[in-house]
Amino acid sequence: MPPTVTKEPIEVADDLDATAALWADREPDARRRLLLGALAAFASHGYSASTTRQIADAAGMSSAALYVYYDSKSEILGEIARTGHASVLNECRLGLADGDSSTERVRAFVARFATWHANHHTLARVTQYEWRSLEPDDRKTIKRLRDEIEKLLASELEAGVESGEFEVTDLDGTVIALLSMCIDVARWYSPHRREKPSAIGDLYADLAIRMTRA
Amino acid sequence: MPPTVTKEPIEVADDLDATAALWADREPDARRRLLLGALAAFASHGYSASTTRQIADAAGMSSAALYVYYDSKSEILGEIARTGHASVLNECRLGLADGDSSTERVRAFVARFATWHANHHTLARVTQYEWRSLEPDDRKTIKRLRDEIEKLLASELEAGVESGEFEVTDLDGTVIALLSMCIDVARWYSPHRREKPSAIGDLYADLAIRMTRA
Repeated sequence: MPPTVTKEPIEVADDLDATAALWADREPDARRRLLLGALAAFASHGYSASTTRQIADAAGMSSAALYVYYDSKSEILGEIARTGHASVLNECRLGLADGDSSTERVRAFVARFATWHANHHTLARVTQYEWRSLEPDDRKTIKRLRDEIEKLLASELEAGVESGEFEVTDLDGTVIALLSMCIDVARWYSPHRREKPSAIGDLYADLAIRMTRA
Repeated sequence: MPPTVTKEPIEVADDLDATAALWADREPDARRRLLLGALAAFASHGYSASTTRQIADAAGMSSAALYVYYDSKSEILGEIARTGHASVLNECRLGLADGDSSTERVRAFVARFATWHANHHTLARVTQYEWRSLEPDDRKTIKRLRDEIEKLLASELEAGVESGEFEVTDLDGTVIALLSMCIDVARWYSPHRREKPSAIGDLYADLAIRMTRA
């Protein structure tokens, strides 16, 4: 039982096209292909068991070419995780940007947050599962983005309590439960299920309002 | 960048004592120690990067002695995952066994299910994160246990809709959301947080009733 190095070809996840769009402005193209190749490799074999060769193969490049762009596997993982968190934080901000009431804003926040985790389930899953493989600095950056997401939702819930729309006994606990319910979509979501990402978002927005309304 | 084999000593997770109790009737003692050693190794390094030596070391045995009890690393992972699922299914059944109404039974089910995922967060996390490393037969067994858990909760929600206690527009979606919210406790729970497992269980039971009540 030596460390397992899986030799099977990498399964191409169904959501890599959506995730590729997150890196649309990443230049040059080789970098984008390496990020996607690494994501596919990490999702199939896990970070520890993924080799440079697998990542380079998935990107259609040589292993040597990979080092032109990245110094290490962990640098790639860090970029994947940072981009993912920046993207989802942006979704959260968009959700809170409109809406005439806290109810509408929380609804939009949760719908977007849950939908994002279905649309980018491979990226989200790799980031969660490989948390221990991230460099300390990347973890710090990501922790900051996560705290920001928690704060955004907590503030809107507080505003809704003040306006009388919400009744929340344990604000911090409810924030975590709401976010957690949406994050876990990335674990169980599969394109083979009947639910579409936006339908999951709508259901979760309803459930969130049920959980918080006065 | 060859496959990473982490050399650091294995961190002893805080919840291994609670999880050891799940294997209290597992004979001989060496098997119990190997299960716990493997769990600690998989949690620290991931399944792929965990070596026989690390598992045996954590169990206080030689690598050769390990093979007396298990043929492969995946056999140990399978047993860890099966025991965990059997234990949590048992909790779900206990939750539904008493209570004078569907509301009380769902409350007890969710409280126990969420508390279990805090109490056994290392076991739950390893089982989720290493899903792809399980043998097909183990996955089938575990899928069956999971389906059983979903069915138990769905039936109780249906009973509550019939009795007029609950109002649920999307039964399957609500069942998944409820279970998912509790399962994800294993991802974020840490004994360093202020919330105790039973307090998380109580909060989640409240939130579940808010999500379903008429």
